[in-house]
Amino acid sequence: MEFGKNNTAFGEGEFAARIAKTKTRMEAAGLDALIVCDPANLNYLTGYDGWSFYTPQAVVVLQEIDKPFWFGRGQDVNGAKLTTILPADHIVGYSDDHVQSTAKHPMQALARWLQERGQASKRIGVEADSYYFTARSLEVLRRELPNARFEDADLLVNWIRAVKSDAEIALMKQAARITELTMQTAIDTIDVGVRQCDAAAAIQAANTRGTKEYGGDYPAIVPLMPTGVGTSCPHMTWLDEPFLAATGTSIEVAGVRRRYHVPMTRTLYLGKPPEKMRHAAEVVLEGISAALEVAKPGALARDVHAAWTRTIERHGLFKDSRCGYSIGLNYPPDWGERTISFRAIDETVLEPNVTMHFMPGIWLDDWGIAISEAIRITATGVETFCNFPRRLFVK
Amino acid sequence: MEFGKNNTAFGEGEFAARIAKTKTRMEAAGLDALIVCDPANLNYLTGYDGWSFYTPQAVVVLQEIDKPFWFGRGQDVNGAKLTTILPADHIVGYSDDHVQSTAKHPMQALARWLQERGQASKRIGVEADSYYFTARSLEVLRRELPNARFEDADLLVNWIRAVKSDAEIALMKQAARITELTMQTAIDTIDVGVRQCDAAAAIQAANTRGTKEYGGDYPAIVPLMPTGVGTSCPHMTWLDEPFLAATGTSIEVAGVRRRYHVPMTRTLYLGKPPEKMRHAAEVVLEGISAALEVAKPGALARDVHAAWTRTIERHGLFKDSRCGYSIGLNYPPDWGERTISFRAIDETVLEPNVTMHFMPGIWLDDWGIAISEAIRITATGVETFCNFPRRLFVK
Repeated sequence: MEFGKNNTAFGEGEFAARIAKTKTRMEAAGLDALIVCDPANLNYLTGYDGWSFYTPQAVVVLQEIDKPFWFGRGQDVNGAKLTTILPADHIVGYSDDHVQSTAKHPMQALARWLQERGQASKRIGVEADSYYFTARSLEVLRRELPNARFEDADLLVNWIRAVKSDAEIALMKQAARITELTMQTAIDTIDVGVRQCDAAAAIQAANTRGTKEYGGDYPAIVPLMPTGVGTSCPHMTWLDEPFLAATGTSIEVAGVRRRYHVPMTRTLYLGKPPEKMRHAAEVVLEGISAALEVAKPGALARDVHAAWTRTIERHGLFKDSRCGYSIGLNYPPDWGERTISFRAIDETVLEPNVTMHFMPGIWLDDWGIAISEAIRITATGVETFCNFPRRLFVK
Repeated sequence: MEFGKNNTAFGEGEFAARIAKTKTRMEAAGLDALIVCDPANLNYLTGYDGWSFYTPQAVVVLQEIDKPFWFGRGQDVNGAKLTTILPADHIVGYSDDHVQSTAKHPMQALARWLQERGQASKRIGVEADSYYFTARSLEVLRRELPNARFEDADLLVNWIRAVKSDAEIALMKQAARITELTMQTAIDTIDVGVRQCDAAAAIQAANTRGTKEYGGDYPAIVPLMPTGVGTSCPHMTWLDEPFLAATGTSIEVAGVRRRYHVPMTRTLYLGKPPEKMRHAAEVVLEGISAALEVAKPGALARDVHAAWTRTIERHGLFKDSRCGYSIGLNYPPDWGERTISFRAIDETVLEPNVTMHFMPGIWLDDWGIAISEAIRITATGVETFCNFPRRLFVK
């Protein structure tokens, strides 16, 4: 039985390097301790994997102690033993009467543990804008440890994740094969009269089955396939209704391998696409080419955005949202890493093994079009993860 | 095209009743305004539905104004128009440069809107322990509106949700049919040599396809099927590895209909189960029967827990976690409603149309067993949502 999925992909050395980088950034930020609650960061630092993030859990990095600690619900301790690189005495469970209780909060247990470890008066970083670190979590920590100083260290680990190791890239290349076959399944299945839920079923099955060599993992976002007027709403999920003739459908999926995501979007039109959609597709394709020419080591994230924007504006189209974001290891609700964005104000310098979803969706009043590519910055330029026809599909 | 999924299931009257109950509870808590961030509560109060909860969004209830307001990312405004009961001038979008940005936070935009609406010095409730209301969200609101008084109103709406309407029960009964066929698919598919991911693919497809009459929706938790030593870890997800002979697998799935969940757990053993597992299964079944005899209007949640605990302890088994929780409308990461739990300290009085997942999983050092029932408190007692053999499955 293969447990410790990521352990086997990475080995102790890679985890040690991640922890060392985290401690370097903690030192720069003046932090003695860091409480990590983003599930992707828990996985990144220790290998921990499980759908347990609906109750508070954390990896705690103490500057003065070599390995981090896993802290979570008692019934998830066995999962931490099976999936992490941590020794048993670095795995700490809290009792179940803390779970979704009006009487006790898990952060009280974490505060007690920090106190026992001599951290009650230290400078402690928290991921203040992470999905799974609630406002009350911080209130409870502050109340229980009044002499500690809590600092907002959101994204400290995420920024380390933004540049992938070669082992991570290898997993993403496996994920890309799953992306391709998932998108092919979507294009083959969606047709006039087919219920949206039946198409979603086929797409999910392909996504999870993966290839003979590489099984698929669950995506951080379910397959999205808004159709008709729904294409103006990028985050609509499927309904019971059938796909209709003379409508477009925007398909957004991600192949996933051991929590590493490679997303892709294509638009499929059932029937003869209206001229405005054909035209928009051509402009989007030209915009993608222009952007990918600019994406290379040393370019800024905003340069890629500017190349895209210049191209589509020349053709009278306009997109007021970012056109891409950093991707990789993730858990619901988002496969984006919340660090680099292709947008006008993002001055991040691109470097090799930065991985992005270049996602130039255009959503207008009652229709939209989206064609995207997951990309990797290489030593000299850029490559796409997937090898899949880049066009408006018509059926 | 059927949009406004929940609108069609419920109609304006039911939404009006939900909003009225919310305002009554707000008044009791002394609140002028309530910022709702739990996606299930957004849906409950307005019908809003979409996978957009990875960026901050809210429904804002103002005591002095009839209908609530939807507040979210600009590109999700169309989705709010299509899915909610709200008039267009109650739908407010923020610009995309607030999204996952280091320069701006969406709660700054919400604070400006509250100020324009004359709420800057009011008592404002927030869901302080909701997954999608982060610590920084509260910090930003406090900084931007220093004269407002923010109160922790977590679960205010969730407690209203705890008692279902007949229309909600009707959706849950549809979901139960999907639960049954999903579990049957799991039991039919899991076998020696089958890859876990291939079984997960078949299970997800059945879950999403639903029945001919009722399409399935995505569950708030992916299908869980920890196997072998993994059965000691309730929240492990599938791997590439095949299922092995002489091992047990705990299968936890939920049929979902328009975001309403009906979960079920069964344990499947491939081969001849060891005596200790057979014995545990018998005890668990006896414990379920004892608990269901107690579950009725007027009983306390803790009475159900006590009946379960007495039974299994008489047979030398022990479970230190809660044995059930409130279920219904939900979004990832949890189908539980975070209100009623079957546990020793929960004194909630059960009443008709309270819906619970009675989930008596037992997780020991290197194995576990789980057999559960989703239940509804009726006028006089209790009924199970599903009609599915309640036993240890052996194959």
